[in-house]
Amino acid sequence: MDPARSPLLTDLYQLTMIDSYLQRGMRGPASFELFSRKLPPGRGFYIASGIEAVVDWLTTMRFSEAELAWIRECGHFRAGFAEELAQLRFTGHVEAVPDGTILFPQEPILRVTAPLPEAQLIESRVMNLVHLHSLLTSKAARAVLAADGRRLVDFGMRRAHGAEAAMAAARSTWIAGYAGTATCLAGALYEIPTVGTMAHSYVLAFDREIDAFRAFATAHPENVVLLIDTYDTAEGAGKVVELAHEGYPVHGVRIDSGDLGAEARRVRRILDEGGLGQVRILVSGDLDEYAVARLRADGAPVDGFGLGTRMDTAADQPHLDMAYKLQEYGGVARRKRSVGKVHWPGRKQVRRRFIDGMAAGDTLCLADEEPAGDPLLTEMMDGGRRTRAAESTAVIRERVAAGLATLPKACRALEAEPDIYPVEVSSRLRDCAAATDRQRH
Amino acid sequence: MDPARSPLLTDLYQLTMIDSYLQRGMRGPASFELFSRKLPPGRGFYIASGIEAVVDWLTTMRFSEAELAWIRECGHFRAGFAEELAQLRFTGHVEAVPDGTILFPQEPILRVTAPLPEAQLIESRVMNLVHLHSLLTSKAARAVLAADGRRLVDFGMRRAHGAEAAMAAARSTWIAGYAGTATCLAGALYEIPTVGTMAHSYVLAFDREIDAFRAFATAHPENVVLLIDTYDTAEGAGKVVELAHEGYPVHGVRIDSGDLGAEARRVRRILDEGGLGQVRILVSGDLDEYAVARLRADGAPVDGFGLGTRMDTAADQPHLDMAYKLQEYGGVARRKRSVGKVHWPGRKQVRRRFIDGMAAGDTLCLADEEPAGDPLLTEMMDGGRRTRAAESTAVIRERVAAGLATLPKACRALEAEPDIYPVEVSSRLRDCAAATDRQRH
Repeated sequence: MDPARSPLLTDLYQLTMIDSYLQRGMRGPASFELFSRKLPPGRGFYIASGIEAVVDWLTTMRFSEAELAWIRECGHFRAGFAEELAQLRFTGHVEAVPDGTILFPQEPILRVTAPLPEAQLIESRVMNLVHLHSLLTSKAARAVLAADGRRLVDFGMRRAHGAEAAMAAARSTWIAGYAGTATCLAGALYEIPTVGTMAHSYVLAFDREIDAFRAFATAHPENVVLLIDTYDTAEGAGKVVELAHEGYPVHGVRIDSGDLGAEARRVRRILDEGGLGQVRILVSGDLDEYAVARLRADGAPVDGFGLGTRMDTAADQPHLDMAYKLQEYGGVARRKRSVGKVHWPGRKQVRRRFIDGMAAGDTLCLADEEPAGDPLLTEMMDGGRRTRAAESTAVIRERVAAGLATLPKACRALEAEPDIYPVEVSSRLRDCAAATDRQRH
Repeated sequence: MDPARSPLLTDLYQLTMIDSYLQRGMRGPASFELFSRKLPPGRGFYIASGIEAVVDWLTTMRFSEAELAWIRECGHFRAGFAEELAQLRFTGHVEAVPDGTILFPQEPILRVTAPLPEAQLIESRVMNLVHLHSLLTSKAARAVLAADGRRLVDFGMRRAHGAEAAMAAARSTWIAGYAGTATCLAGALYEIPTVGTMAHSYVLAFDREIDAFRAFATAHPENVVLLIDTYDTAEGAGKVVELAHEGYPVHGVRIDSGDLGAEARRVRRILDEGGLGQVRILVSGDLDEYAVARLRADGAPVDGFGLGTRMDTAADQPHLDMAYKLQEYGGVARRKRSVGKVHWPGRKQVRRRFIDGMAAGDTLCLADEEPAGDPLLTEMMDGGRRTRAAESTAVIRERVAAGLATLPKACRALEAEPDIYPVEVSSRLRDCAAATDRQRH
């Protein structure tokens, strides 16, 4: 029972509801859409991601014997339910935006149309995957914008929330525009450049700091980035100059503590005076997009940023609003009216208009409407099979870069005004919503 | 290459450093300790967890052929390094506190003593696992304290950061004292009670709300908890009364939107007037320990809380300070002096003293000292093999409950004073630190 693959990675109520649907023969096609109702404060956009992971999961999802044994023994279900689940495969139709698409509130990320029990079963994991990837990709894109061309690398694996989150962080930060990740497995599985320097423990394992520097430069002469703050940062920088004068290669230094802007200035001066003008300065330690923006605004001589914990846990906002809602069942559009949680009913599409190459506004409309603009949702699966080829992270990375470049400046700001990007709702969709609300329940 | 198992789920620099250690024959025993330097603001304690997961991983960790192929091809390493890694197993000694132990800053969670390359390799994943579990267990324990005996259940799977985080959340909340989780797979793998109600989509799949209620009560008569806020909460409560009067079983209702305290009062009145005094009220929606405390303080008639996103992402503080630091190598105690990041050097133990059954203070000391109190770290592995039997989640849950019961009230407060719990540092440890700092580097 691999958590990343198991259909039991779901909420009990999904199975309880499916049990009831199957008992009542409610197997008609249902359409669910996944979307975000609102952005966190100050955010002018978000980036949908994780759809590739969803499609990958849906194509292979099935209950194993061990999982069915739990269904039989857990005490929640009637006899025979496990046998019905044993037959269950995802046979539905999926339309979605491709990973790396910039979106705004109320716009569907993904639409599943499938027999009601299948569409219901997958809710929890679909949300879990798309939420995580979208959260991390959106956050990382903000740092990329704040860095304004400076090099960012992902150092966050150790404090990401588990293995899957660490892998998602490496992938998300790369597609958002980072230069690479320290996470080796992401290099191996996602074709992401892997990067790294040295740890304090390496310095501590030698009796003298300069011996550690010499050993590192000898072992890895092609990429000598030395961590210089283990004992005293200025002294560390002095030893780097000494090392270079001894003829060792030195490409960069990393500073991981103290006032990073002030330390970078001090170190830059020491390196420059030592004739090491070409040696790059990398800083790390509790950095996020705000810290990057501040260091950039202060003109700190920083060539690259190692970003970790605060980005990979999305520390200031570790969850996005996201909902997977029944939009249509039995050919009838549906929506709930719970306070503060209203959404647009029906099967929807988003069309984006461009003026002079810049995104000028979206229209949220019914799927069969064709207002001006490019449709964002496209078919990913039909009959439970993938109909759109999987994309490499390189292709997705280009999509994000292109999307950010066409995004109006006001949306790209670190502190954006609420709902700054124009999203219209088509009059047919408004009519559909009004008709839905007139139904008696 | 399963991320949860792969030794490539590590930072590149670990491999770079190991490569250098192996080239220089630096295979002597090194001791690393994992600890937290400081608590988040307002926290009076934290709970260490995830050690079982670490031990489990270490006993099976090895490089697969596919992983070695990446090592050969990634371009970072000399020829022959992959062959050395192919032989690598964890052969070390591990002492740690058992999962569910209450700890304070600077106290070691876990100590690894192993040949330097092994001890270095595992850093990233050891941290990743213990950080995640400790983060979620500590947060959940706060909600348990705030609920003061009321029933809490984990509904957070969908917005936890991936599959491993969702499973860790279910386990962490259960050992912290929740009554159960909605996550089925955690029920199957960790023997945690699974719980659940119904979703809005279930109500929406029927033309009339009361038809949905009738269908649910028919399908699952043993646990009828009805979600009543899809259209109008008061009307929903009225339908529950109607349903009960028709003879259907009703055990509880769930409210998931609006002002939960006010809605609970209104619903309680409707249910009571309908003769349903025994029907429980469960609330959910963006709840955390603070919201639970407020609802309890306001005397809202809430019998149970479904907690999700804010707990399972540890939303107010999604990362803990945590470090894995070289303490001793070549028989010499070590520590760095980076600004704000000093730690106590050497191989350490913690002793906890109790007075009248309450924890009265800890002593942080060298491992070979024996001041008064019970030692908290115990042997988990020796020679790379598990020497302490794995514990069930039920046993760990009892440890947490016992620990919370012996914790001084001031530490248990939702807004605790900084460093409220007394942790002494032994004079021998202070001497060791002073001697370490006198070394020249």
